[in-house]
Amino acid sequence: MSIVRKMLLSATAVAGLAVVMPAQAQFQKPEDAVAYRRGAFNVMGNHFARIGAMTSGRVPFDAAAVQVNADIVQTMSRLPYAGFIDGTQSVGNTNALPEVWSQGDKFKAAAQKMQDAVAKLNTVAKTGDQEQIKAAFGEAGQSCKACHDDFRKKLN
Amino acid sequence: MSIVRKMLLSATAVAGLAVVMPAQAQFQKPEDAVAYRRGAFNVMGNHFARIGAMTSGRVPFDAAAVQVNADIVQTMSRLPYAGFIDGTQSVGNTNALPEVWSQGDKFKAAAQKMQDAVAKLNTVAKTGDQEQIKAAFGEAGQSCKACHDDFRKKLN
Repeated sequence: MSIVRKMLLSATAVAGLAVVMPAQAQFQKPEDAVAYRRGAFNVMGNHFARIGAMTSGRVPFDAAAVQVNADIVQTMSRLPYAGFIDGTQSVGNTNALPEVWSQGDKFKAAAQKMQDAVAKLNTVAKTGDQEQIKAAFGEAGQSCKACHDDFRKKLN
Repeated sequence: MSIVRKMLLSATAVAGLAVVMPAQAQFQKPEDAVAYRRGAFNVMGNHFARIGAMTSGRVPFDAAAVQVNADIVQTMSRLPYAGFIDGTQSVGNTNALPEVWSQGDKFKAAAQKMQDAVAKLNTVAKTGDQEQIKAAFGEAGQSCKACHDDFRKKLN
């Protein structure tokens, strides 16, 4: 069975849920929710780093490239949290700490802080102002780090 | 070392490359390119399936939700191909067949066909016309399948 077909069946299976929770991501099994959130974070981190290479001056600053990447980062920033559903705490290849669930309000606040910082970065990116972009990138990076410190396994 | 810091360093390390190939994704190691492309496909497939649940009638049709998801799908459709770089053919947890590299032009054409179909789906989504959306979703799904048939390991 193809992945597309599997996903359609999956989406179908939770149709009842989707009616009451339209924002809920539709996953066939807990591992799928973990893979989805990891995928979204991976893509977000990659494009965020592309901006960082420019704000640090290691790659020539390209305002158009910053805009493209900031826009992708903002889109991605909204997605992964749908994957932190109940029953996915110690599932699959996850780096999420139990505090994601035991301190849900704090986790949500940290997510919101990141989303706000990334939205600001995307707004500032459109001005093309290198100094403002650098500052907004730094703030957004701090919001990533703060959440990683509290809610992600320490990676070596 | 944090992922963010690692990615910044990674982006830095390939600065020379980035100058001549600004569109080239910046990956620290081949496995990162594989994880990135898999992540992008995963997110794309998830949001595509959310539309499919509505076009199939199993989940109530919600024009606004279709629009949000079609927009994410189109954004994602542009991304994964940057991860199919040389040296990532049999690396990590990949389902890519060798034909991705040995039949590069055919692979690119299949990717373009999907991107065009998804762009059309996103345009049609804005009309809110359920029948047109259903047709455009079907065409986009065929473009996914065609590429999977030729360029992806058969999954059970």
